[in-house]
Amino acid sequence: MSDITKTVRVLGIDPGLNITGYGVVERKAGNFQLIEAGVVRGGKGTLAQRIRRIHEGVAEIVQSLAPEVVAIEDLYSHYERPKTAILMGHARGVICLAAAQADLHVENYAATQVKRMLTGNGRAPKSQMQMAVCREFHLAAAPDPPDVADALAVALCHLFFVSRAIQLPA
Amino acid sequence: MSDITKTVRVLGIDPGLNITGYGVVERKAGNFQLIEAGVVRGGKGTLAQRIRRIHEGVAEIVQSLAPEVVAIEDLYSHYERPKTAILMGHARGVICLAAAQADLHVENYAATQVKRMLTGNGRAPKSQMQMAVCREFHLAAAPDPPDVADALAVALCHLFFVSRAIQLPA
Repeated sequence: MSDITKTVRVLGIDPGLNITGYGVVERKAGNFQLIEAGVVRGGKGTLAQRIRRIHEGVAEIVQSLAPEVVAIEDLYSHYERPKTAILMGHARGVICLAAAQADLHVENYAATQVKRMLTGNGRAPKSQMQMAVCREFHLAAAPDPPDVADALAVALCHLFFVSRAIQLPA
Repeated sequence: MSDITKTVRVLGIDPGLNITGYGVVERKAGNFQLIEAGVVRGGKGTLAQRIRRIHEGVAEIVQSLAPEVVAIEDLYSHYERPKTAILMGHARGVICLAAAQADLHVENYAATQVKRMLTGNGRAPKSQMQMAVCREFHLAAAPDPPDVADALAVALCHLFFVSRAIQLPA
């Protein structure tokens, strides 16, 4: 198994057609450092034009920030709104494509996994998740828009997950 | 409105993660001609690897066959199986992306629209749809796999739609 002191850089993504949040976090010598976070906007136009902008934006982030892995929330918590889930599937598809085109591995996490990993509670409210992200990165206030905090949360979830996994007894 | 005798070349797509059917059809001097039809396979591997193959395949078809428009079925008939619909949304997203990257317009049709346009019945069974495609192109048997016939059906739907639209009184 890999060394816990090994540097890992992960790109967390909160996919959306309007706003896709992203956050690049690095685990270095056991600490988590926020490298960069922000949003990619789908903007106006047809569905095809909007996902083209999302694809371009994520491809640029992947190229400039060189993560080793992409962590992204799955969409299965959106079952109750199938039309939204299908549209978000389009955005998520082009994001996964940008990762695959850079030969990056994509890790999927359920919303409940992310919440449990960050707060110990799989049903934690949004405010509690934002607090957990702020605490981890010593931020005075939650990132705005909230999609940025959600992206950082899934990036942290991945790092907690791999850090925890390699501490298990052999 | 545009001249009905104008040549229009449309790429019809039946999106899928395993098999994406495609069919390029041209309206020329009022006739519909099948230019090429076939499938792009997602193959094995992760979701990201599979949609990468679909994107590459569709981008190649767009480049080599130079359609002017892409016609694709929307996914809203898959509400009853949200997990499938979300996964198909990923495939559909990268297909729309390939179209947008070639600056092609994407036209969306509901499954019921395609059925009504080809058979007069929005709830036509698959066999009736295949018959309509065979009749239109003078095929002895339905294309195999059925995803090819579905792609040709949505291409025809688009051509019927634009041909009908321009015959409306001004």
